[in-house]
Amino acid sequence: MALVVQKYGGSSVADASCIKRVAQRIVATKKAGNDVVVIVSAMGDTTDELLDLAQQVSPLPPGRELDMLLTSGERISMALLAMAIANLGQEARSFTGSQAGVITDSSHGRARIIDVTPGRIRGALDGGQIAIVAGFQGVSQDTKDITTLGRGGSDTTAVALAAALDADVCEIYTDVDGVFTADPRIVPAARKIPRISYDEMMEMAACGAKILHLRCVEYARRFGLPIHVRSSFSSKEGTWVVSDPDSEGKEMEQPIISGVAHDRSEAKITVVGVPDKVGEAATIFKTLADAEVNIDMIVQNVSAATTGRTDISFTLPTSDGSTALTALKKIQERIGFESLLFDDQIGKVSLIGAGMRSHPGVTAMFFAALADAGVNIEMISTSEIRISVIVGQDDVDTAVGAAHRAFDLDADQVEAVIYGGTGR
Amino acid sequence: MALVVQKYGGSSVADASCIKRVAQRIVATKKAGNDVVVIVSAMGDTTDELLDLAQQVSPLPPGRELDMLLTSGERISMALLAMAIANLGQEARSFTGSQAGVITDSSHGRARIIDVTPGRIRGALDGGQIAIVAGFQGVSQDTKDITTLGRGGSDTTAVALAAALDADVCEIYTDVDGVFTADPRIVPAARKIPRISYDEMMEMAACGAKILHLRCVEYARRFGLPIHVRSSFSSKEGTWVVSDPDSEGKEMEQPIISGVAHDRSEAKITVVGVPDKVGEAATIFKTLADAEVNIDMIVQNVSAATTGRTDISFTLPTSDGSTALTALKKIQERIGFESLLFDDQIGKVSLIGAGMRSHPGVTAMFFAALADAGVNIEMISTSEIRISVIVGQDDVDTAVGAAHRAFDLDADQVEAVIYGGTGR
Repeated sequence: MALVVQKYGGSSVADASCIKRVAQRIVATKKAGNDVVVIVSAMGDTTDELLDLAQQVSPLPPGRELDMLLTSGERISMALLAMAIANLGQEARSFTGSQAGVITDSSHGRARIIDVTPGRIRGALDGGQIAIVAGFQGVSQDTKDITTLGRGGSDTTAVALAAALDADVCEIYTDVDGVFTADPRIVPAARKIPRISYDEMMEMAACGAKILHLRCVEYARRFGLPIHVRSSFSSKEGTWVVSDPDSEGKEMEQPIISGVAHDRSEAKITVVGVPDKVGEAATIFKTLADAEVNIDMIVQNVSAATTGRTDISFTLPTSDGSTALTALKKIQERIGFESLLFDDQIGKVSLIGAGMRSHPGVTAMFFAALADAGVNIEMISTSEIRISVIVGQDDVDTAVGAAHRAFDLDADQVEAVIYGGTGR
Repeated sequence: MALVVQKYGGSSVADASCIKRVAQRIVATKKAGNDVVVIVSAMGDTTDELLDLAQQVSPLPPGRELDMLLTSGERISMALLAMAIANLGQEARSFTGSQAGVITDSSHGRARIIDVTPGRIRGALDGGQIAIVAGFQGVSQDTKDITTLGRGGSDTTAVALAAALDADVCEIYTDVDGVFTADPRIVPAARKIPRISYDEMMEMAACGAKILHLRCVEYARRFGLPIHVRSSFSSKEGTWVVSDPDSEGKEMEQPIISGVAHDRSEAKITVVGVPDKVGEAATIFKTLADAEVNIDMIVQNVSAATTGRTDISFTLPTSDGSTALTALKKIQERIGFESLLFDDQIGKVSLIGAGMRSHPGVTAMFFAALADAGVNIEMISTSEIRISVIVGQDDVDTAVGAAHRAFDLDADQVEAVIYGGTGR
């Protein structure tokens, strides 16, 4: 008998009929002889509706109260799901994050899980019951106040509970069939990836693939917990996220590139004419860190010998743009830079693949493909298993498609073969 | 500095603008130098909407899960109210029933309060904060599951917390100005009652006055806690419910009759032709009690000497009608009664007044007024401070108006004077 943790997102429980369908799947898993723990998000647009209500009463609601408000969303979906399961003749018990033992710090709106003490969940399983747990929420260790985990919170709840319960698998249900080699809306020939490593999945998530949140994959990697991303609309196998995707030898040769991710949510700021003195860049990025701005890529031009000045460009979430600009304005005089440029018409395209480690020439091939497609590269950054470029936002689709084709990821193509090349 | 507990019902917090208005009243009470604890119901029709959702997924949802679902309603309203108060510059903290220490038994849907341990509420007050508490809900002592208190639950929460905190007053806010001598929709000349005793208020509540639930008045009486029923739309004094309304000597002479209540929610069942043997009535009412049917009034005809049979009539909530009839059908053969009659076209009209104790003739005057108005009396029941009659449902308005006039309760009338009479 396996212990299966399943997570259903808001679109999977959007209305009563969705909930009844999900209940049938859960009952089928239970009847197949498994212990089942289900993590559920708020129904459809509930969270947005609650946020809208909050805005109507207060422009800047206190975090504690906003968390109290938002956590009612999962309370509704989990109770309804437990009822739907009971209606199918199986016993189910719903539990809030607090009841399920999800202990967090007290950072309202973006709490981090400190500990998971799932005594009541174990009790329910021992009693033959299906446990339904509210995703996205916990209880603060210090204040005993209700907290929320922020973006990707329900996935994180699922993985954290699965790890604490030593589950055999954490199934993340979504409205697509799994993780794809590229966004199928941009690349119709994109294929489902059967197995992918935690490292690659983390890079995918960090580069804009929205299917799993970085945080939940990190958590799963730490505990070696297999994640199975699959569709709640079919019983097909989805994508397995595991330590070593090759271990089962299912594929003779893993592709060099696992997928192409893209992200349109970033903007670029250029600090123009920074005096080329020691410590100026450090001051700039310290200022941004203090303002809690997340920086992604950074490029510094070679200083022009004639002026003794340089330009520093970096990318950041577009939503952090005004915070960053305001913070930098304040140090303009002290640093003595000339001006600030802001460009939100950019996009990031990333190639991800563990095969890069052992295959030189990937970068050259990627850049050649973009050049052939007429796409200009503005910035570049790399990791051991990833190459990212910043391009104009209008070029994102073209760049993704070109890269996908160049590395033979299109469906029905044969494995890519890379000839020689100049190394990365 | 006084400790004021305020309770706002669903219509007082129906939308964002209502919530902001309530927040202003709460802040004004706080600024006047009081400690303030607020009990709040779910917004407007939230509870009905949640019940409707439950019906969509399961015809008979488990009580535990229904309670989990319904308690999300107050969670939403209390968090929004705390936000609205924070927006006015006062610190507020919302607490679930469980966090507020409302400990109940585990009867889901109609839990009874066992204990109140308001440590966190006291802590909030000591910190200068306004405490907002979810009405209607608690946590079961045994199972630690979330419970709801059933009908009148939020009022009961308010009174229970006020008693546990030794509050100076429990203010129940509603959409009318207080308790009236009769329903103003039926008797336009009805007056607001400035002060009324717990006993009279309990009789009023039991006889259909919907403004306060019987249970909360009972609770307040046990702890000698003054209740102030008032409008959330004005700052006028409402009705004080206290032990001894005359103690302040505000009125030279209390009226004999405090008010006229009515109730259209009952039905009458007649068990026809019951053999006149010892124990038959006991069997009938034991059967009904086992079926959890609440009986109100009972009348048994004098047995007809010729047949040795009698008729037994009783009233009950119309909603219990089919349960009662089904239970009685099952014992028809054993008891040997002839048939069952069901009549839901009845209404109950009740005169309530502590002055009845010392004034004979009230019953005679009441019956004369009904006779003059052409109203036929079907059943009668009395307590020390109440006379109730069952009349045809179409006669209810006429009967209420006639009684109200006969006892000089109409506004601008002088105090009633009762001449002699035959006693009750």
